[in-house]
Amino acid sequence: MTLAVGVIGLGVMGAEHLRLLREETAGATVTAICDADGERAGRLAQGAAVFADPLALIASDRVQAVVIASPDATHAGLALACLAQGKPALCEKPLAATTAESLRIVEAEVALGRRLLQIGYMRRFDPAYVEMKHAADAGMIGDPVLLHNVHRNAAAPDWFTGPMAVTNSFVHEIDISRWLLGADPVTATVHTAPGGDPLLITMETDKGQLVSTEVFMNARYGYHVHAQLVGRAGTVQMAQPAVTLTNGSLHHGHTYPENWVPRFRDAYRIQMNDWVRSVASGKAAGASAWDGYVATVVAEQVVSALQGAARVNLSLGARPDLYA
Amino acid sequence: MTLAVGVIGLGVMGAEHLRLLREETAGATVTAICDADGERAGRLAQGAAVFADPLALIASDRVQAVVIASPDATHAGLALACLAQGKPALCEKPLAATTAESLRIVEAEVALGRRLLQIGYMRRFDPAYVEMKHAADAGMIGDPVLLHNVHRNAAAPDWFTGPMAVTNSFVHEIDISRWLLGADPVTATVHTAPGGDPLLITMETDKGQLVSTEVFMNARYGYHVHAQLVGRAGTVQMAQPAVTLTNGSLHHGHTYPENWVPRFRDAYRIQMNDWVRSVASGKAAGASAWDGYVATVVAEQVVSALQGAARVNLSLGARPDLYA
Amino acid sequence: MTLAVGVIGLGVMGAEHLRLLREETAGATVTAICDADGERAGRLAQGAAVFADPLALIASDRVQAVVIASPDATHAGLALACLAQGKPALCEKPLAATTAESLRIVEAEVALGRRLLQIGYMRRFDPAYVEMKHAADAGMIGDPVLLHNVHRNAAAPDWFTGPMAVTNSFVHEIDISRWLLGADPVTATVHTAPGGDPLLITMETDKGQLVSTEVFMNARYGYHVHAQLVGRAGTVQMAQPAVTLTNGSLHHGHTYPENWVPRFRDAYRIQMNDWVRSVASGKAAGASAWDGYVATVVAEQVVSALQGAARVNLSLGARPDLYA
Amino acid sequence: MTLAVGVIGLGVMGAEHLRLLREETAGATVTAICDADGERAGRLAQGAAVFADPLALIASDRVQAVVIASPDATHAGLALACLAQGKPALCEKPLAATTAESLRIVEAEVALGRRLLQIGYMRRFDPAYVEMKHAADAGMIGDPVLLHNVHRNAAAPDWFTGPMAVTNSFVHEIDISRWLLGADPVTATVHTAPGGDPLLITMETDKGQLVSTEVFMNARYGYHVHAQLVGRAGTVQMAQPAVTLTNGSLHHGHTYPENWVPRFRDAYRIQMNDWVRSVASGKAAGASAWDGYVATVVAEQVVSALQGAARVNLSLGARPDLYA
Repeated sequence: MTLAVGVIGLGVMGAEHLRLLREETAGATVTAICDADGERAGRLAQGAAVFADPLALIASDRVQAVVIASPDATHAGLALACLAQGKPALCEKPLAATTAESLRIVEAEVALGRRLLQIGYMRRFDPAYVEMKHAADAGMIGDPVLLHNVHRNAAAPDWFTGPMAVTNSFVHEIDISRWLLGADPVTATVHTAPGGDPLLITMETDKGQLVSTEVFMNARYGYHVHAQLVGRAGTVQMAQPAVTLTNGSLHHGHTYPENWVPRFRDAYRIQMNDWVRSVASGKAAGASAWDGYVATVVAEQVVSALQGAARVNLSLGARPDLYA
Repeated sequence: MTLAVGVIGLGVMGAEHLRLLREETAGATVTAICDADGERAGRLAQGAAVFADPLALIASDRVQAVVIASPDATHAGLALACLAQGKPALCEKPLAATTAESLRIVEAEVALGRRLLQIGYMRRFDPAYVEMKHAADAGMIGDPVLLHNVHRNAAAPDWFTGPMAVTNSFVHEIDISRWLLGADPVTATVHTAPGGDPLLITMETDKGQLVSTEVFMNARYGYHVHAQLVGRAGTVQMAQPAVTLTNGSLHHGHTYPENWVPRFRDAYRIQMNDWVRSVASGKAAGASAWDGYVATVVAEQVVSALQGAARVNLSLGARPDLYA
Repeated sequence: MTLAVGVIGLGVMGAEHLRLLREETAGATVTAICDADGERAGRLAQGAAVFADPLALIASDRVQAVVIASPDATHAGLALACLAQGKPALCEKPLAATTAESLRIVEAEVALGRRLLQIGYMRRFDPAYVEMKHAADAGMIGDPVLLHNVHRNAAAPDWFTGPMAVTNSFVHEIDISRWLLGADPVTATVHTAPGGDPLLITMETDKGQLVSTEVFMNARYGYHVHAQLVGRAGTVQMAQPAVTLTNGSLHHGHTYPENWVPRFRDAYRIQMNDWVRSVASGKAAGASAWDGYVATVVAEQVVSALQGAARVNLSLGARPDLYA
Repeated sequence: MTLAVGVIGLGVMGAEHLRLLREETAGATVTAICDADGERAGRLAQGAAVFADPLALIASDRVQAVVIASPDATHAGLALACLAQGKPALCEKPLAATTAESLRIVEAEVALGRRLLQIGYMRRFDPAYVEMKHAADAGMIGDPVLLHNVHRNAAAPDWFTGPMAVTNSFVHEIDISRWLLGADPVTATVHTAPGGDPLLITMETDKGQLVSTEVFMNARYGYHVHAQLVGRAGTVQMAQPAVTLTNGSLHHGHTYPENWVPRFRDAYRIQMNDWVRSVASGKAAGASAWDGYVATVVAEQVVSALQGAARVNLSLGARPDLYA
């Protein structure tokens, strides 16, 4: 009695989700897949039905739940289709490209009256972030007052344009900061180094907490995400991301990965297991459509502040009861 | 088309194996369980058939593969029963209590002509040990010449007797040392602190490498396993087992667990996933019956050396081709 | 042929300077001391002449060089007296309470035509900061673009008022940031947590680098200073300030001191040795009067920005050639 | 009223001692120096009297105390000369090459009835070892039961012969182990890797504690000394020897020095300051002639055990009351 899952999009993330469902997730069977590249889909089918049209996959009787990992621009439409079919979906971030589009999805889900969408902000399942949140919630550091985030990529992809440091990378920091602090950002101030990289973004939350985030797209030395949460009685931070240490050539230490996949492999696996269980139990978990909406809204307003020197007031709108 | 697994023994480890199979393992369904405490079995059944007799479970058509997690004294008999039925089994360590018994199992499997038994030396799946072995095998530290192992328990259980520090704890070090070094121990020297705890055991391998192991059953401060592999060009060691670090009350650092379960939770999970895949593919993996035999043989001879001050020569017998 | 030093002020820092001169500094003899509490001075004299009037000490033939460690409000006047006598002085920070006062001292020294004053910004002698600067200057991290500073006190003294987080603590960050980056700040933006503590201060330098500083006066868990310098090819940061690590009571880690004295003991010692050598050689070193002036100027302008939400432009005035 | 010190031997260590006395030590003046290379002595004189004959230096009225840093073979004779003149000396390790020679010096000092000799086992002044001893003495780890020492050189010097791993390197471990544990070794067992390097030496003390030491003369990756002291309630160990950490080229960590000088620079400095103060106060400190004797005795007996596989009983003789 396993969950019949259809996977849309078989690129880097989609192929990894497919592998996780097949090799490391309990209670799920991949019954259908779909990719713009039909040949690739055929190679990965292993008995699953291959669809050329993602909407047909979503509508198919073979599919009880959907993983959306197709290009960003398609997320919103496919998420709406899942809602229309009443099927749960795990949708890769971002939920949508614009505030307006995100809002439309939220409204559709609110109209439906139950949460079917989970957005793939996988950091919420990363063991280090989970431990940080647990430490904060358990009172181990007193009331949180300040969060330091560091987000460094070895090198921005070729197709990166300026605002993508915000809309593609910083959105993760928006989501994880809201989740760690249980608060929404209300102002943002951006400082920019020469050449536009790195950015230093300071946000204030509706609880008065401060969130400081460095986003460095071309840090060169490796992919590195760090966070330290400062409370009134102590702090909790990520340990260095390494399980072994090496001595060699006058050097002690460990290596960094070149990108986010090895760093967050475990988070993606746990997210997938959790999603399958949450669908089976009918109890929504993870980042909601509202969370996806807020990340997009804040990112859009931060982008508008990129050129200015002033503090910008953020407006999120009222949160529907569904997401209380 | 999932693997139908029967679980024998539902104590601490058995219940964890059951949970892993149901919640975090792909491709398996628990179809039968068995425990001396029938009521406990009933509570955990969730639709699986409940057997009072483990041999009946092993023989049942509902069961394709077996997890043996019953008390240590029963392992050997159940492992032999699995071999008799031609069913693959993941058997918790130790394989057997004595050299003679272990040898009987090895001989039965050799007579069968194919590997059906995997012994639950889960450290072989621990990410830190796996990285250490990878570093060594990839030549990153030159030829390994020395291995430092530290094995500390917060407190020995009440029912622990002297030799159990060897037969219950040190066996893990025997197995992981052989696996890391690709070599067998040929001598052992034991040093004992007052009161018999901790032990310091030095082994030499058939490649001339040295293995130094501290076994401290009552280290009090926590459960802590550490290893450093020293090569002719560098070393590789476990990082501290923590994903977060905390500042509080004039202190910086992290906590230790009270026992081995949290430390090796991931290793158990990965072992289970790997075992299910290996059964499905028919390709044996993990610690073999021979490995289980060697751990028991070496432990037995080290126990005999506990009172002496001299270096003891170990004899393992010839390894059957099946385990080449 | 040792340097005859007079020490003014024998409180916590003055007594430590006295001890350092006597026990850990080569080439110096303490020939005169002075304190508002004459009895205390008498107890610490050990053969040195005891002065009731600091100006008399400065003027005395027994004294070749002066350490000024009396209350902050007296620094400016005593520094001017040393200049008037043509005697070198190591003056505790801050140089003066106001921009105007600091400027008067700078102008007096410029009129004299040679540097006699060193300001006790001892972090410039801290081995960790020195290594960070060396790494940056040696090109090990590429061009520095961003500096993260963290300045945490266990608890603010009773007599602390709001602006003192800036004028007493943040001044250290101003000075060390200028020294590490070889650049002056040109803007400052202040974010404040509820209750006014912690502060998050972002500065931009005349090279376009960003400097982010957390000043937390009541961090409770201990005294902790941290810095990470981010370059275009890598980063360098302080290691945890500990030479040993302890396991105990389910905990791994190290302790923090309650205040700055243990953390910077070595920096004070090295500063003192260096100062004595620099006086002997006639080659000024360490933080100059100009550096002391800049720290005061920037702090004063940051204080004025404490209530505002905007980025403030800083103005330093032109640096005299003497300090090139 | 500074101490007039004569320095014998101006090689690597002697030149460093000379520098420390002149630049980083309070209360001392170098009044005389002596080296086999007279030209070198001349270059370093800076006003000190240059002696060709070390015995003449020792006897000179200009010299109140002596630093012996000449070649190892000369230590014993010069130490005896200092005793004959009644002058305190800081003598580089080893005190003497043989048990017999060491014993002669001990007997001479006992006959004199007061301690004049301090042996340069500088690790006793290393901040990390000092903190470890403090933690043990303060009861922070319960009764110490086991000490793990690691002593790795990047490469043995050309002139190194087999036993020197013991007589030159392991002697440091003998001394520091005795000091940390407050106990003497009574047995030793040696295990040797192929080619004779590394050695693994296990000692038992007269309190039943175990001491495990790896001596690796050609560890290649750098100079690295580590120690962990295990008590019945916890452990204390050296932190990694670094004040900064670097990220670069996919790597996080720090560098090791190529030899012992940078690692123990601070220990040498503190030792020198302490020695000058102890001479001034007449209160002997540091490692005594007896400590130097014991290190030599134990090393000699461990060398004799290098080829054997058995546990060797060590005999030290009775400790004279002078060293109680």
